[in-house]
Amino acid sequence: MSGQTVDSNSAMIANVLGTKGYVIKRKVTIDDDLDDLCHEIEHMSSTSDVVIINGGLGPTIDDLTAQALSMVTKCKLVTSQTALLHLEGMVRSVGIKINDANLKQTILPDGVDVVPNPVGTAVGFSIQHNECLIICTPGVPSELRVMMTDQLMPMISAKFPNRSDVTTLRFQTFGIGESDLQQRVSNDYSDWPEEVELGFRAGMPLLEIKLIIQSSEHKAVQQQCYQRMKSLIGDYIVGEDSTTLAESVYQLLLQRQKKVTTAESCTGGLIASSLTEVPGVSSVFEAGMVTYSNRIKQQFLSIDSQDFSDGAVSEPVVIAMAKGAIAKSNADYAIAASGIAGPDGGSDEKPVGTVWIAWGTADAISTRELLIKRPRVAFQKMVTAISLDLLRRELLGIESQPRYFQ
Amino acid sequence: MSGQTVDSNSAMIANVLGTKGYVIKRKVTIDDDLDDLCHEIEHMSSTSDVVIINGGLGPTIDDLTAQALSMVTKCKLVTSQTALLHLEGMVRSVGIKINDANLKQTILPDGVDVVPNPVGTAVGFSIQHNECLIICTPGVPSELRVMMTDQLMPMISAKFPNRSDVTTLRFQTFGIGESDLQQRVSNDYSDWPEEVELGFRAGMPLLEIKLIIQSSEHKAVQQQCYQRMKSLIGDYIVGEDSTTLAESVYQLLLQRQKKVTTAESCTGGLIASSLTEVPGVSSVFEAGMVTYSNRIKQQFLSIDSQDFSDGAVSEPVVIAMAKGAIAKSNADYAIAASGIAGPDGGSDEKPVGTVWIAWGTADAISTRELLIKRPRVAFQKMVTAISLDLLRRELLGIESQPRYFQ
Repeated sequence: MSGQTVDSNSAMIANVLGTKGYVIKRKVTIDDDLDDLCHEIEHMSSTSDVVIINGGLGPTIDDLTAQALSMVTKCKLVTSQTALLHLEGMVRSVGIKINDANLKQTILPDGVDVVPNPVGTAVGFSIQHNECLIICTPGVPSELRVMMTDQLMPMISAKFPNRSDVTTLRFQTFGIGESDLQQRVSNDYSDWPEEVELGFRAGMPLLEIKLIIQSSEHKAVQQQCYQRMKSLIGDYIVGEDSTTLAESVYQLLLQRQKKVTTAESCTGGLIASSLTEVPGVSSVFEAGMVTYSNRIKQQFLSIDSQDFSDGAVSEPVVIAMAKGAIAKSNADYAIAASGIAGPDGGSDEKPVGTVWIAWGTADAISTRELLIKRPRVAFQKMVTAISLDLLRRELLGIESQPRYFQ
Repeated sequence: MSGQTVDSNSAMIANVLGTKGYVIKRKVTIDDDLDDLCHEIEHMSSTSDVVIINGGLGPTIDDLTAQALSMVTKCKLVTSQTALLHLEGMVRSVGIKINDANLKQTILPDGVDVVPNPVGTAVGFSIQHNECLIICTPGVPSELRVMMTDQLMPMISAKFPNRSDVTTLRFQTFGIGESDLQQRVSNDYSDWPEEVELGFRAGMPLLEIKLIIQSSEHKAVQQQCYQRMKSLIGDYIVGEDSTTLAESVYQLLLQRQKKVTTAESCTGGLIASSLTEVPGVSSVFEAGMVTYSNRIKQQFLSIDSQDFSDGAVSEPVVIAMAKGAIAKSNADYAIAASGIAGPDGGSDEKPVGTVWIAWGTADAISTRELLIKRPRVAFQKMVTAISLDLLRRELLGIESQPRYFQ
């Protein structure tokens, strides 16, 4: 309620429920006040089939969920043996000691069903009240995410069998904006079939597109729509489901048995670390260099000092960086980036946001200059995404100088 | 409600109000249903002094705010001349044409006060109902942000002069858990003063602690509490406000006029990219190396092959990585990390999650082995945070082998 944190949990819950065809009617956030909490639980449980309560199960004094549920259901608070066993198992595996604060997490209303938490010390629990299924979950996003799919969805669908048969076809795109895409679809497909709902989720930096059908009888139409989207924006499609740009590059390199190296200035290691987020990346990535200063660029990558005649943010420098990285690492491909991340360091000729990117093989390096007017960290993320996308396009042999976000 | 979008507007509203001492009691999100909307407006306006409604003022058919307000207040919908003038001025300045969808935005309940929108076509409006001030605002975050500070805050504080005088003292900690901290406070400070509220926000990887007072007359007590926290957990405190680990390391190096370099295996560039998120970092960071394979570790960092006798995840290797990075870059300090990020690559002796970290100067390298049982990307983030924290501690000359998250 203080506004210090943006609530991403409720969007995730809505997403997971929505893909299975369940409708969310109402979402309420209240502050840490026991009376308000009790009043809201009473109200929501008498107007809904399922209430999911998120957060307030932690060890601190402002965690009030168990206490509120105890008051609403008139079940006194007792130590749950199941919750205690879970806590003991969890701390044993991590090798820490149980303290009083942890023990508070095992004190739950009498008679609740414990909902296992495979990744944290606090369990969830469920209880029936006003003919409503109330499920309490921990607030930590990574814990909630696992519990939502593994525990909550089976519980909910067991009690409220899902009459609908929603199928979602998800894919990731990079370099095209939501309104542009919406416009293209409206222009080209005035006959877009009603039974295929088009959904967007703007991630950073990817835009996820979903084609949602409410019944499996529409699967053929859904596939047709996917093919249409492919013909409309094919080159911008990074992959299906939750494929990232780094995963796509990894897969393409793996298929070709090629390796990539990185030489980074303004991105400071973010291209390399994006690649190494991918499990198994060692078969396509061995080496990266962060050459932040000009002295280090020259020394690590053997760049000729005359390449710097137009400054470090220039085409000759990024070409030399890419070639130098390939020579040093023996990789097949390189990505190099040099730019002005800001907030300082810009000039009239090269304002903050200017960046040169080079990519390719030792004897075929491509380059591109861009102006990305975003705050420092957003700039670094965007340069990283574009660099990976340019290599992805090169590996696929598709349009290598796309219009990005036009 | 579909979970397609994460709601950052309400956090921003709460933040702006909170810094002025206004308390938010309740936040409700409902779907595009006219009955639900009317019912909620009626309920909230009879239990609050101010209701801020965000969104639903756009040009599409599912934008229902004006209609709902008209039904609740029984003021019929009419074209607002003020809103129309605003729209005409706005489209003239952008050079676009007014269409029917735009005109819908000027149809408001009769008698409302228009709230100017300096950056968009849709105006906000306010109306009195149930002795409550209801203010409707557009959903576009950039528009809302401007209107919140420029229009809404003056309106609210004119009607409800702010009696409270909230001051929040925020600081960041690393390496101590919320429950442990709560425990320490409970154990050591049973006399914790009531007027200083203790708040936590678990970030990744930092834990933010807040000491909140409702009146400036408690500032001395707040400072006492801060000093007590410092004596209790001082070494774990990274900095005030929103200081990150990388910013703290940067500041300490800058004060000492020293430079740092990185040699990364399992973190794949994440330590370097965390450092380079900090503006101005070039004065303390010139070079980083991502040596993902053993071949590259040997070649880039001149590591002796016999250092690998116990594998790449071993003390001799991280020491040699740190020394090699200093020798190559001429930096004063190095951070090096080698570990098994998983999901594959573990053994009985060295399970997934094993990591060796080295840090220090060429003639004084310290090392530490840890077992961090987390999924790949979370493991990389935690190793990065611990590496930066160990260097931070070295630079401060404080406990260099702390207990982390015990």
